[in-house]
Amino acid sequence: MIKPLVTGLIGFGNIGSGVLRAMAERAEELKARLPRPIVLKSIADKDTTTRRDAPYHKDQLHGDAAVVLEDPEIEAVMELIGGVEPARTFVERALRAGKHVVTANKALLATHGPELLALAAENGVGLLYEGAVGGGIPIIRTLQQGLSANRLTAVRGILNGTCNYILTRMAEAGLPFDQALTEAQEFGYAEPDPTYDIEGYDTAHKIAILASLAFGMDIRFDDVFVHGITDIHPVDIKHARELGYAIKLLGIAQRHASDGSVIVRVHPTLVPLASPLGMVGGVFNSILVEGTPIGPTVYYGRGAGPEATSSAILSDLMALASDTHGFNAARDARLTVRVGERTLRPIDQLRTNYYIRFSMVDRPGAMAEIGRALAEHNVSIESMIQHRVELAQGMATITIVTHEALEKDVQGAIAAVEASEKSAGKAFVLRVEE
Amino acid sequence: MIKPLVTGLIGFGNIGSGVLRAMAERAEELKARLPRPIVLKSIADKDTTTRRDAPYHKDQLHGDAAVVLEDPEIEAVMELIGGVEPARTFVERALRAGKHVVTANKALLATHGPELLALAAENGVGLLYEGAVGGGIPIIRTLQQGLSANRLTAVRGILNGTCNYILTRMAEAGLPFDQALTEAQEFGYAEPDPTYDIEGYDTAHKIAILASLAFGMDIRFDDVFVHGITDIHPVDIKHARELGYAIKLLGIAQRHASDGSVIVRVHPTLVPLASPLGMVGGVFNSILVEGTPIGPTVYYGRGAGPEATSSAILSDLMALASDTHGFNAARDARLTVRVGERTLRPIDQLRTNYYIRFSMVDRPGAMAEIGRALAEHNVSIESMIQHRVELAQGMATITIVTHEALEKDVQGAIAAVEASEKSAGKAFVLRVEE
Repeated sequence: MIKPLVTGLIGFGNIGSGVLRAMAERAEELKARLPRPIVLKSIADKDTTTRRDAPYHKDQLHGDAAVVLEDPEIEAVMELIGGVEPARTFVERALRAGKHVVTANKALLATHGPELLALAAENGVGLLYEGAVGGGIPIIRTLQQGLSANRLTAVRGILNGTCNYILTRMAEAGLPFDQALTEAQEFGYAEPDPTYDIEGYDTAHKIAILASLAFGMDIRFDDVFVHGITDIHPVDIKHARELGYAIKLLGIAQRHASDGSVIVRVHPTLVPLASPLGMVGGVFNSILVEGTPIGPTVYYGRGAGPEATSSAILSDLMALASDTHGFNAARDARLTVRVGERTLRPIDQLRTNYYIRFSMVDRPGAMAEIGRALAEHNVSIESMIQHRVELAQGMATITIVTHEALEKDVQGAIAAVEASEKSAGKAFVLRVEE
Repeated sequence: MIKPLVTGLIGFGNIGSGVLRAMAERAEELKARLPRPIVLKSIADKDTTTRRDAPYHKDQLHGDAAVVLEDPEIEAVMELIGGVEPARTFVERALRAGKHVVTANKALLATHGPELLALAAENGVGLLYEGAVGGGIPIIRTLQQGLSANRLTAVRGILNGTCNYILTRMAEAGLPFDQALTEAQEFGYAEPDPTYDIEGYDTAHKIAILASLAFGMDIRFDDVFVHGITDIHPVDIKHARELGYAIKLLGIAQRHASDGSVIVRVHPTLVPLASPLGMVGGVFNSILVEGTPIGPTVYYGRGAGPEATSSAILSDLMALASDTHGFNAARDARLTVRVGERTLRPIDQLRTNYYIRFSMVDRPGAMAEIGRALAEHNVSIESMIQHRVELAQGMATITIVTHEALEKDVQGAIAAVEASEKSAGKAFVLRVEE
């Protein structure tokens, strides 16, 4: 007699509804593929009244998470609340009670992942989170298993569909940021309060999780340098294109060949127009993983939404239900073991190419001022665009792309230019990835 | 006391050497990640004299596969010979002896996969083959696990680096096929006898394997419609580009929404230049998987070579070594279970757009002849290019792209045109994927 995998759901929003729909629609194939049927016993959510577009009976829905967390019959808990609290408390209680946890909560994992994974291992249960990054793209499993034989050197990704939609619209329709954001909100691609997405926090949570897996290090949200997309001007997108680049918000984690140290950062980035990342438009995600011996590999798909995310969450439930003699949590824990010392390198030690837009007083000598400041800080110019763009009265915009330089030097040069009388305002910096 | 995973290798060529190198280079991380160390005990290959560029002791190398197959201490066998026989016999013997098998042998799996997987299940061991398709791209695991929650509807892939290199060079340098092939052979991207690659057989083996996994059906090499790239003329690539397409050799497996029937085919295909497949150049592979609820996802990477393939093979060994209480073969078998009836649809029932290059006598009425024949067979023209390309004396080339039409009708129309006195030779057909 085979015991079904009895599950409980905490947090009954769009994602949760999507998971229940997917489970119902796929019931027959799940039966054929899995040795153990997956059963949803109870659901907990503050809102017990709103009818959801999902197959469930109202008696299954309760206002108190304890109904799920304290039910000895429930073997696996889906945590789909999002945010750190109360999600963290619920997940800890579930793990301590010996229940597997399936979550799509990137904020929780990026801030407390290592402790929670350790707690899961202690209690001999699994903590699965395929849905936390990349929506339907199975990037977590790919890093844990598919690429496990490689020494990974870099992960670069378009990880936030909202930002990519906004940047795509700015590029295609020449919209200013605010207008593109408003449009994204109208289409439901951006939240009424878009801060978490447009300031890069969502991407930072995701790249922290990917970096931890890729490098086997304890890397958290606080370790990530973050700069969002709110201050990108249409002129930057125009300049970038003239130079053969698109501007994308990337999460980037790189391991330095020299000492194995890692820099993890999120910022708008110039990427070649005809590259696996430069080509990605709209709300899609794309993740470039590089390693030895494998070389470059790319994973592309829908990065968010109930459909994509429910595919990831259901694949985690299927992993739990695919072992007749119980899910092998020990193995799961092994795959997320720390194999490297945590050696992070500060952003000012970054070496890359830079795009810098200077706002100068529209008077002779402005260019000379910039040239001098850059030279004094060992930053050499690869290409330059000078436009009398009237971003403000009597102001000239001078945009350059540097050869590879040290972030510290670039910031020094910029400070020097901004301090000069020829400066008409702050410079705007973007980093370049070839 | 933890028992190491003792392995044996049969077939000591480039791939085998690459695996041994990768195991040595990654020794430390393998130790950290795996509960059981992986040990290579013995190697079997006909050639026991040639020194390989890999870390092994000559005493480990034997001429007789029995040394590996009959050693009770060996728990897992790597079969890296390639080809159906004697690989099939060796794999069967290993499975019957209760040994796990790791192979990259696409020909073997595409012809006898279902029997071998069943034999593995009977004997409670695993048959792992991540290296058989897509080189370092973990597409097998992705279909088995990552996308397991989806109802997959289509798999389209550039699966053969040799063909993609040749087509890329034909497009970029305008080379004729023969010259591009010679170049590929000089660079070692093509075999001295390139038949297996350029006739599409390699791609057909791979798409049969992917289709079986994606649709849970028993689909074999013999079920695949195959047409290679040898008869592509530079003018076709030129025409395709004028129409906004690249020509790529694709393996395509589609499930029809109406009745769930599947067509599996390999042929040169027109794909939009700026698409995830159209952009792929050189020896890289790219695989587009579509399903519900996930939508489109793409997987890109190096498709061949000892580096990429050894990453896949080593990831399979790591899967075997990651379970302290033995690899869960039952689970592995489950993931390849047949969930669907095998319902294949013949190629003449295909509905798509067609690119047709007619060779006509350079005389009035040629176009009228083509128009009449197409109309009589319910095939309508979407766009047309007429060139007096002198492929032969006094011959006109008329190239059209049709609206969606039935393959049967298209072939009928072509036969009618070829039978007419206005025809100056056989027509050349390519299919289009939007």
